[in-house]
Amino acid sequence: MATNQERPDGVVPNWEAALLEQSLSRRVRAVGPAYWGAGATAVPPPVPPIALTGGVPDPETLPFDDLAEAARTVLEREGRLALQYGGPQGFLGLREWLAERVGRTDGLSLGAENITITNGSAGALANVCETFLDPGDVVIAEAPSYPGAMRAIRGQQARLETVPVDGEGLLPDALAETLEALSKGSARPKLLYTIPNFHNPTGATLSLERRRAVLEIARRHRLLIVEDDAYGEIRFGGERVPSFFALSNGDGVLRVGTFSKTLSTGLRVGWVAAAQEATDFLVRMRFDMGTSPWIHRLVAEYVSRGLLDRHVPQVVEVYRRKRDAMASALAEHCAPYVRWQLPSGGFFLWLELERRVQPEALREAAVEEGVAYVSGDAFFVARTGSRFIRLAYSFVAEQEIEEAIRRLGRALRRAETASGPAAG
Amino acid sequence: MATNQERPDGVVPNWEAALLEQSLSRRVRAVGPAYWGAGATAVPPPVPPIALTGGVPDPETLPFDDLAEAARTVLEREGRLALQYGGPQGFLGLREWLAERVGRTDGLSLGAENITITNGSAGALANVCETFLDPGDVVIAEAPSYPGAMRAIRGQQARLETVPVDGEGLLPDALAETLEALSKGSARPKLLYTIPNFHNPTGATLSLERRRAVLEIARRHRLLIVEDDAYGEIRFGGERVPSFFALSNGDGVLRVGTFSKTLSTGLRVGWVAAAQEATDFLVRMRFDMGTSPWIHRLVAEYVSRGLLDRHVPQVVEVYRRKRDAMASALAEHCAPYVRWQLPSGGFFLWLELERRVQPEALREAAVEEGVAYVSGDAFFVARTGSRFIRLAYSFVAEQEIEEAIRRLGRALRRAETASGPAAG
Repeated sequence: MATNQERPDGVVPNWEAALLEQSLSRRVRAVGPAYWGAGATAVPPPVPPIALTGGVPDPETLPFDDLAEAARTVLEREGRLALQYGGPQGFLGLREWLAERVGRTDGLSLGAENITITNGSAGALANVCETFLDPGDVVIAEAPSYPGAMRAIRGQQARLETVPVDGEGLLPDALAETLEALSKGSARPKLLYTIPNFHNPTGATLSLERRRAVLEIARRHRLLIVEDDAYGEIRFGGERVPSFFALSNGDGVLRVGTFSKTLSTGLRVGWVAAAQEATDFLVRMRFDMGTSPWIHRLVAEYVSRGLLDRHVPQVVEVYRRKRDAMASALAEHCAPYVRWQLPSGGFFLWLELERRVQPEALREAAVEEGVAYVSGDAFFVARTGSRFIRLAYSFVAEQEIEEAIRRLGRALRRAETASGPAAG
Repeated sequence: MATNQERPDGVVPNWEAALLEQSLSRRVRAVGPAYWGAGATAVPPPVPPIALTGGVPDPETLPFDDLAEAARTVLEREGRLALQYGGPQGFLGLREWLAERVGRTDGLSLGAENITITNGSAGALANVCETFLDPGDVVIAEAPSYPGAMRAIRGQQARLETVPVDGEGLLPDALAETLEALSKGSARPKLLYTIPNFHNPTGATLSLERRRAVLEIARRHRLLIVEDDAYGEIRFGGERVPSFFALSNGDGVLRVGTFSKTLSTGLRVGWVAAAQEATDFLVRMRFDMGTSPWIHRLVAEYVSRGLLDRHVPQVVEVYRRKRDAMASALAEHCAPYVRWQLPSGGFFLWLELERRVQPEALREAAVEEGVAYVSGDAFFVARTGSRFIRLAYSFVAEQEIEEAIRRLGRALRRAETASGPAAG
């Protein structure tokens, strides 16, 4: 317990270790330490690092004035409702807007009853896991996948089975094989957790053909699809590929979205779109009485003024420039040591290290050079991803990208094994 | 699915019933329909009812201008941090303020590491249940108790065992007997969920002597205490009784608080104060990446300006006046039909119906007369509370209280059984 000496007037709470140990749920034991802050170090690094870590929007793009104005407007106009419980499913007006928007994109006829508003897409995934998973259930996910979702799944004492991906995403044949193999055991695969657009971390987008194949396989095996589309709006070009939700008419699919990547992570507004039958069960598992109706209403105000439709193309341009700047810098400073594929959207570049780069040495050299990335280990169930690193171009200032990648290049050179560059 | 005819351009999502049925978790099956809106009726009532239902602050007291100003100030001063992920434990500055405040009240030396910020106290209770409960575990609660907590407990497939109360709250001897009886079975009682101050729904406050006795019993049976203090700040008089958290030096006690009753339910800011060892496990089970740091920071701004310390005494006066107005009106219009005890704080009056009042007839008559209350059934595990009703004086306009209670009086008269008043 910290800084006790400054509070001499009382006793510091302290919980008898044995009592705590015998009181914890099996779920908290299964889940392991908190994801947040896992990368924090006790010792300050020698060089202030340029962070290429978080999947967080560019802070320069955050629409402070418009959000403050929307917050004030809704308090003045509908303050009593904004500052009262709004119910676990969330503010009707925002659900109506989302139903119209998702419905139009997906060619489905949705209503507010198809939407539940959550504490970001993280809250959405937690809600979905609580509604559908029992201990011992199996969830299929891509390898690699988003660590936050993997934690939420483990938090239900469910087991993760992963399916490999290539540059175009999930491999349907591998999915079918995995499910065939599992069908011989006793555990029941219940959910497929997938990020079909601008995948985190790989950046890949699943083709329409593969989506159809995956849907067919999921149907055959009675597998629900949880479609995490956190990054879908950050699209640099190409046609939008229809969602699993659209392709299935919503049958057996939960489509998860968020304002975090387009607008702000700090609003904590995400949602699940699903058939009403499924939505009603999601709402049953919301014991938190809903997130802030003030926030829901200010987001509704912001979007109904058309501000999101103006904002998204602007930020997409910012991220496209940053992606291009990072790709150019990688070509210049890191090309001999890493391979990558240019993503057509999202926040990330996913790098595979050439064999002659020693991952542990790279980690140390990167700290010394002053550049921070996320090791690929975090994205694999058994932490088997040390030959990959994820770089986020979203948050870093554009003018720092070249310097960050130059530092990474120096770190890569230092992390070469003794056998030298020719050994690759 | 509603209003399909207005959206002719697509297919309404529809989930194959058998697939949904076989996919649901045991938890969602255990929990039953959502608490929210359980009182909603499909048919509009003949008279617009005066609502004495929700435990919600007086809307006239909500500090709209101060909150809007705090929201704008933090966006201007620290917007980048307010609109980014703030971590699952919540904004450090607000945790520090809470640690100081709770520590001062309870005579303990607390730091930010002892506080976790939650989506209201409902979110706090859900977090506590997830961290400590496994299916089949037993939770002890007062009969009656807060329905939202009972749902969160059932949502973990835990079993509720209840202990009767009298006008001074939980009966320690009954608690001891219940635990003795349970100790012969196989299920393990793990938590005591209790509302020691201005109990919801009874309004009772547990005496210091009983708190000491309960703590002693809990220690002996290795029972954790979850102390829900949602209403503790709404105190009309008398000395504050030390919390279980204070009396135990925090050992084995989780103290749950909220800004919902003092400030606004729509901010959705609650907290748990606990030993750091326990807090670390609570944070592990937060898969939602924390609630909005913008809200945390505006609340921190509001409280550091001293505005809460000015606000609370003002609203306490409002609620005291409303309680008195309701008690006077009850004496005038309802006295022959109900018994009650004047609460020394909180939002509720808990009425026991005299035998000659027929609860089902009262329910119907109240709808016709235009007054809404919560039936006592909602507060008992087996819905055995039909002889009680809960009236909230917090939300209703002061000038409507007399009329509401006059209507209740008329409804009570109409709900008398044929045997007549003398039969009571």
